[in-house]
Amino acid sequence: MTILDVIETKKNKQELSTEQINFFVEGFTKGEIADYQASALLMAILLNGMTDRETFDLTNAMLHSGDIVDMSHLGGIVVDKHSTGGIGDSTTLALAPILACCGVYVAKMSGRGLGFTGGTIDKLESIPNFNTSLSEEQFFSVVKKVGCAVIGQTANLAPADKKMYALRDVTGTVNSLPLICGSIMSKKLASGADTILLDVKYGSGAFMPTAESALELAQKMVTIGTRAGKQIGALITDMEQPLSDHVGNSLEILGIIDVLKGKQNRLYFELKEVALRLLCLTGKCDMASAEIAFQSAIDSGKALQKFAEMVSAQEGDSSYILHPEKFQIGTKDIVLAQQDGYVCHMIAADIGRAVTHLGGGRMKKTDTIDFSVGVIMKVAIGSQVKKGDVLCEVYHNNGKGLAEAKSLIQNAIEIGNDKPSAHKIAYAFVDKNGVELY
Amino acid sequence: MTILDVIETKKNKQELSTEQINFFVEGFTKGEIADYQASALLMAILLNGMTDRETFDLTNAMLHSGDIVDMSHLGGIVVDKHSTGGIGDSTTLALAPILACCGVYVAKMSGRGLGFTGGTIDKLESIPNFNTSLSEEQFFSVVKKVGCAVIGQTANLAPADKKMYALRDVTGTVNSLPLICGSIMSKKLASGADTILLDVKYGSGAFMPTAESALELAQKMVTIGTRAGKQIGALITDMEQPLSDHVGNSLEILGIIDVLKGKQNRLYFELKEVALRLLCLTGKCDMASAEIAFQSAIDSGKALQKFAEMVSAQEGDSSYILHPEKFQIGTKDIVLAQQDGYVCHMIAADIGRAVTHLGGGRMKKTDTIDFSVGVIMKVAIGSQVKKGDVLCEVYHNNGKGLAEAKSLIQNAIEIGNDKPSAHKIAYAFVDKNGVELY
Repeated sequence: MTILDVIETKKNKQELSTEQINFFVEGFTKGEIADYQASALLMAILLNGMTDRETFDLTNAMLHSGDIVDMSHLGGIVVDKHSTGGIGDSTTLALAPILACCGVYVAKMSGRGLGFTGGTIDKLESIPNFNTSLSEEQFFSVVKKVGCAVIGQTANLAPADKKMYALRDVTGTVNSLPLICGSIMSKKLASGADTILLDVKYGSGAFMPTAESALELAQKMVTIGTRAGKQIGALITDMEQPLSDHVGNSLEILGIIDVLKGKQNRLYFELKEVALRLLCLTGKCDMASAEIAFQSAIDSGKALQKFAEMVSAQEGDSSYILHPEKFQIGTKDIVLAQQDGYVCHMIAADIGRAVTHLGGGRMKKTDTIDFSVGVIMKVAIGSQVKKGDVLCEVYHNNGKGLAEAKSLIQNAIEIGNDKPSAHKIAYAFVDKNGVELY
Repeated sequence: MTILDVIETKKNKQELSTEQINFFVEGFTKGEIADYQASALLMAILLNGMTDRETFDLTNAMLHSGDIVDMSHLGGIVVDKHSTGGIGDSTTLALAPILACCGVYVAKMSGRGLGFTGGTIDKLESIPNFNTSLSEEQFFSVVKKVGCAVIGQTANLAPADKKMYALRDVTGTVNSLPLICGSIMSKKLASGADTILLDVKYGSGAFMPTAESALELAQKMVTIGTRAGKQIGALITDMEQPLSDHVGNSLEILGIIDVLKGKQNRLYFELKEVALRLLCLTGKCDMASAEIAFQSAIDSGKALQKFAEMVSAQEGDSSYILHPEKFQIGTKDIVLAQQDGYVCHMIAADIGRAVTHLGGGRMKKTDTIDFSVGVIMKVAIGSQVKKGDVLCEVYHNNGKGLAEAKSLIQNAIEIGNDKPSAHKIAYAFVDKNGVELY
């Protein structure tokens, strides 16, 4: 077999065999297949598509290009939630203690953020002494004891994807359903959870431009995950505005603490939806019992307690969780509405960019993050405002990046005359049983 | 503009602008666009196609990547014939003196052959002292004086094609009509003739597998050439068997001399068809007057005389043309029919390979060619043979490559029980007025 045979097959709209897919992924990862041959094949895949069987084989080949984390020794159900990317996405951190209270394990190995705001790991490191570099043994011991733990990714998960994504990025071959599916699912399947909820975003800043295309991707990923023996479902959600009112590192921890205390904002409702879906996916709950479990975790104060417990177990100062006023945050400034009307549209990515300007995100890998800066939104899409109302608070240090950040935010929050239609928590949910529209 | 914009456009089945095509061809030729980006674009072009306007712009951009030969100073009609490749294709050399006798110029800059048999230049160099490296000034002076001249290509014609073809060859992007069309036509338009006849081959050894696909390519090339202001037509011919009975270098010169003396074999009829079509394309003849001109060039002995004249003008020993027995040829061996029947199929490429084994072609650029070896076919498709009849004569030196050559030839000539249908000289002719089926 040569790579030319593989290219010819896909070029001629035929199905690639498992052997052909393995040959390509292995050869490309080892550098035995040239980039210019790989990119020709990737373009042929993008234009001629892949069957579910081919996509599964692609995912599987990429999965086996690196480490596969084994969590079976935990002896319980391990759940995971994966978002295809968003601004102010604190759901992972807020979910972990809630789900641990509901009797499932959350054992998350997370990446650092590049661009926009910091990643989950950066947010946790804004808690003094929090250790995101536990050994695998320490990590599993925390998971067993507390029910949840979050560390930085140490395992070499799906290196084929890393190399392939870098090539796709410069050859116009990003927006292919089977390739996106292979990229996401190879890493998800390598990370060891039994039960997985995918949050597939759509909108101008996301991989998928429309709800319909996001649903198509979600269905493909659910098919692949189910075939791989996972309990898996996907929510289709928009990326119209930041998920949390709080955007930044320490600020997002404050937002999580609010929600764990029962504050019923957008993050709370999004979180609840994700938690209930995940609990149902485990097969241990129906919606009604899942809701009772979720509600009692929060109302009893156990979820907040669990968060503090996880922080302690990971060597962090849990007094910050119980006394959030201890977090040092930047100097407050504000952005005001320039006219009367309704908030009708937000460029969520630009609010993320604003936080990066303030020092809260990385432009390049070696940048250090200022945990204390960020934005607290005071409006959401649909809010009625009058000229001079506060749209959001901007926390900065010594004015660093403030002018750029305020200008970005001002332009990112569009105010119009007509009240926009009500925001839905999600567009659809999909699992092996089919699609449920909201 | 970036190459990603260009890839996106073609990937999304949109038409590339002239600027986008120029940007790609220039950037790729200069090495500013990476091979892995070029190959992704080439695959998108292969799968999503190109309009005639795009194909014209591609051809034009490749044409302008190098030298363009100007022949307007000759003050007459310059004709050219281009074959997409064949075994025993001696038509170019036989055509030149005939057409010169008919009052048009043939000024051919030809490449050396790689693989199979030698190229036109190699065949000429089998004539002692023949100089294929005339300066451009000497070349045009021979053309003006004699009416025809053939030299090795010195100009840097369409270097973009050279680079692009090397990439297409290793990325499965050869068989794309617009890319093949751009490749052939950029070189043809750069070589300076006003009137061009293309010989588009089909069959297992050719670019185009079927007569229909060859016709489609021919129509595209005629459209592009017409748009570039040329008088252009194309014959669609099969590659089922060697064009000349003589395959080799000196041997093909002998075959040409036979035809110029009036021997009415397959090469003669093919040649006549090409010559008549070319003369009609110039607009100076109709079929009837072209046939008279052709016939009188041969019957009067002027065409053979003209060939000797060209050889002399290019410093060659023309006594070899008038006394072809002076050519030194190898030791004769024969290949015999193993059964009774009809010659029903030939693998023409394998007869070419056989000659290369004998030393008559190049495996790599630096190989030297043995002019004296080759094959003389004694049968053609449709010939009735009895077991033990001579299928062909094989000329070798000291048995070099003889066993391999004989074995290849034996397998290349298939003998069956049923008489195959009569061989047509061509499948179709196409010019700006449309398609004419034979």
